[in-house]
Amino acid sequence: MLLEKEIKFQSKIEKAIEKIVGRDDLITDLEGVYGYAYDCAHIQFSAKYPTMVVLPESTEEVSEIMKIAYANSIPVIARGAGTNHAGGCMPLSGGIILHFAKMNQVIELNAGNLSCRVQPGVVVKDLQNLVESCGLFFPPDPSNLAVSTIGGGIALSSGGPRAFKYGTMKDYVLDLEVVLSDGTIIHTGAQTPKNVTGYNLTQLFVGSEGTLGIVTEAVLRLIPRPECSNVLLVYFERLEEAVNAVSAIINNQLVPSVVDLIDKKTVQTIEQFFPSGLLTDKDAALLIEVDGDCVSVEHQQNKIISLCKKYNAVFIDCAADDIHKQRIWTARRAAFGACAKLAPNVVTEDVVVPRSKIYEMALGIDQIAKKYNIITMIMGHIGDGNIHPNFALDLRDEIQRTNFEMAKDELFRLAVKLGGTLSGEHGIGCQKSKFLSLALSQPVIAIMKSLKGIFDPKNILNPNKMI
Amino acid sequence: MLLEKEIKFQSKIEKAIEKIVGRDDLITDLEGVYGYAYDCAHIQFSAKYPTMVVLPESTEEVSEIMKIAYANSIPVIARGAGTNHAGGCMPLSGGIILHFAKMNQVIELNAGNLSCRVQPGVVVKDLQNLVESCGLFFPPDPSNLAVSTIGGGIALSSGGPRAFKYGTMKDYVLDLEVVLSDGTIIHTGAQTPKNVTGYNLTQLFVGSEGTLGIVTEAVLRLIPRPECSNVLLVYFERLEEAVNAVSAIINNQLVPSVVDLIDKKTVQTIEQFFPSGLLTDKDAALLIEVDGDCVSVEHQQNKIISLCKKYNAVFIDCAADDIHKQRIWTARRAAFGACAKLAPNVVTEDVVVPRSKIYEMALGIDQIAKKYNIITMIMGHIGDGNIHPNFALDLRDEIQRTNFEMAKDELFRLAVKLGGTLSGEHGIGCQKSKFLSLALSQPVIAIMKSLKGIFDPKNILNPNKMI
Repeated sequence: MLLEKEIKFQSKIEKAIEKIVGRDDLITDLEGVYGYAYDCAHIQFSAKYPTMVVLPESTEEVSEIMKIAYANSIPVIARGAGTNHAGGCMPLSGGIILHFAKMNQVIELNAGNLSCRVQPGVVVKDLQNLVESCGLFFPPDPSNLAVSTIGGGIALSSGGPRAFKYGTMKDYVLDLEVVLSDGTIIHTGAQTPKNVTGYNLTQLFVGSEGTLGIVTEAVLRLIPRPECSNVLLVYFERLEEAVNAVSAIINNQLVPSVVDLIDKKTVQTIEQFFPSGLLTDKDAALLIEVDGDCVSVEHQQNKIISLCKKYNAVFIDCAADDIHKQRIWTARRAAFGACAKLAPNVVTEDVVVPRSKIYEMALGIDQIAKKYNIITMIMGHIGDGNIHPNFALDLRDEIQRTNFEMAKDELFRLAVKLGGTLSGEHGIGCQKSKFLSLALSQPVIAIMKSLKGIFDPKNILNPNKMI
Repeated sequence: MLLEKEIKFQSKIEKAIEKIVGRDDLITDLEGVYGYAYDCAHIQFSAKYPTMVVLPESTEEVSEIMKIAYANSIPVIARGAGTNHAGGCMPLSGGIILHFAKMNQVIELNAGNLSCRVQPGVVVKDLQNLVESCGLFFPPDPSNLAVSTIGGGIALSSGGPRAFKYGTMKDYVLDLEVVLSDGTIIHTGAQTPKNVTGYNLTQLFVGSEGTLGIVTEAVLRLIPRPECSNVLLVYFERLEEAVNAVSAIINNQLVPSVVDLIDKKTVQTIEQFFPSGLLTDKDAALLIEVDGDCVSVEHQQNKIISLCKKYNAVFIDCAADDIHKQRIWTARRAAFGACAKLAPNVVTEDVVVPRSKIYEMALGIDQIAKKYNIITMIMGHIGDGNIHPNFALDLRDEIQRTNFEMAKDELFRLAVKLGGTLSGEHGIGCQKSKFLSLALSQPVIAIMKSLKGIFDPKNILNPNKMI
């Protein structure tokens, strides 16, 4: 129960915010704010409702809201589509959710400068479709790109399968408009890919999970769209052979746009729920995509086929046309949905190790899963050492929950032991912050806390996340 | 004259440093420290000798030196080859120069992880030669790569011609070992290209010009070496035609590794001092390099030739073999040396504008040069909007010096007005810091000063540079 004083305070804040955004862009009823207590992470222990959800329509509105939040020390959590896997969008201490659904415009597409200016609520796939229709290309492709937003991608430096060749969001952000915790509006960079004028504030905000400021606009770098692409699905009897084939591909100076690994259990699960004609009795499959000009695509594809054969591939499904290509990609993208049918919960983890350690990491995951008796499927962007184990379990069951916590602890320790780190693209959120000291030294954590203090002296920006 | 107290203090510090590094790695005589008062910038007004030059041989030595510097508030300036164009290596307040000539080892080349671990004194070209001999590729190619070091490249996020396709140093740094101002040793990242574990400290150090910490080791990302490359030198009667041809190339989904512009005056100057068979009566030449697999290189080259013809190229010199390719590159690389023969000083500036504004910027430079009567040659990485005007003048002449200061002021104002910024890859140093407020707002500068305060509370790391 709220005290009378608290009710008065909330009502005062609500009125002030309503004055800024209007009644239509403000949600305060329990049914309305309920959905904003969670994101895609399976965290239930500390879920708290936000006091209100605001849908700002301009940078100025965000700035005015932040002034009120700052003056009254109210937590503010920015939110896109809420697809975060680490609890990054959860309002741990209540407060205001800034939902960017109404700031979803591509403000400018500047083909001459190979850049675009967008609002944070733009859906990644929508942006890709738009720029591709102009012969341009925006490579970052998080799995949930059909719904996830640019703002969320910036908060986590999201990547996806294409990161091996093209990098992640951080490699495509040139400039950010950011509202600071006290409402001040700044620009962090310039519209140019080269820029060494002052410290790189842009990259300090990218990946900072909304803890340093609220991104209200971004200038993104685009590149010319590759002329062609093709996809191969290559099966191996043993995981190690797949890993060796990838090394051979790279050693032969080939740079596929995608080199994804799918293990047997994942293939079987996809085939069980979304029959796609996959081979279910092989230990590992590689989804390899090549792109570039059309002659080069054919050349790369032929070389890859010949290398994979040399490294004991037992079957190579090379797409013959666009429909075939789509079929392979659809099967791959069905993986998460399929896994979710195995148990009430499926938790996607996100560790990253040096590429040369990927086999050891995969073996280790298998051992951990067996030890704690958790159904585990491994998918991974093997080209850049980023593994996503999917754990299927019932988190309502206390034993399973406890086992899972111990499994995660071992998982992160192993990744760090192998020279890797806790997260490649899902972020730390509130789920992994307790593991941070495994990967970062105390002086580094102290520096990060000091940085947080500069940008957010009242600790109101997505508080108690990451550090 | 030094006071007796100061002499005693210096002698005490000298002894303490000598104890750490040994006599051989310490320079204190005037003849020895003289050369360290300058770098490649033409700044004479405030040159001051360093108190001593130290050549550390390990991270631990750097850490011990920093502890002494911190305790005694002594400025410390890290230095590689001293090729900085903005006065970034100059000891404005005296102090200790850390010259990294003896920390020049490639500690590890990890082909399996596509990475290498290097010390800051490694020469860029040496690293490139080494990794290329293993089928790998390290793209950043600052013009002075035959002498300039990785540490300097990290300090400025150096790029070079290949930045259009491959980005600059910032895109290749995965992890840094940094000695903080108090001697603490930290690691900023991981060995993996994907990493969102905490704030991106790595990119905060890249481009920070030695003002936040001393980089003692770096893990760099490598990529597979392109199979082939070729070079074209394409001449146009008018600059605008060259600019339009570049737009057409990009609009046709081609991504050359290099798209450099060389203006008539530069071509004439090269031809005057290093006759290379260049056409001296055309307004503009484009040096275009394409790379990739061999079939793709031929395909790209043919498309570019056909597009350039369509856009009124008057002559296309397409390299027929490696010797021909080298001849074109040698002529291009001779530009700076040739310009230096025109006057006692040649100052290379470094502004960057959105690519779509490059023609306006080039015209503006021409007007400014005429207004202030300064011989100006324009070269530029036109693909990414980075223009390097070379100004040939006599800085001993007060009128020329005054004119040049006014010209620079107009140059930077124009770059910012066109949506660009002060520096793409040469840094701010002490030469451009007075112009910083043209490009950055007051709150941004205040944030940068706070960041500096966190890392360097005593202001001993390359003081009075950048901000």
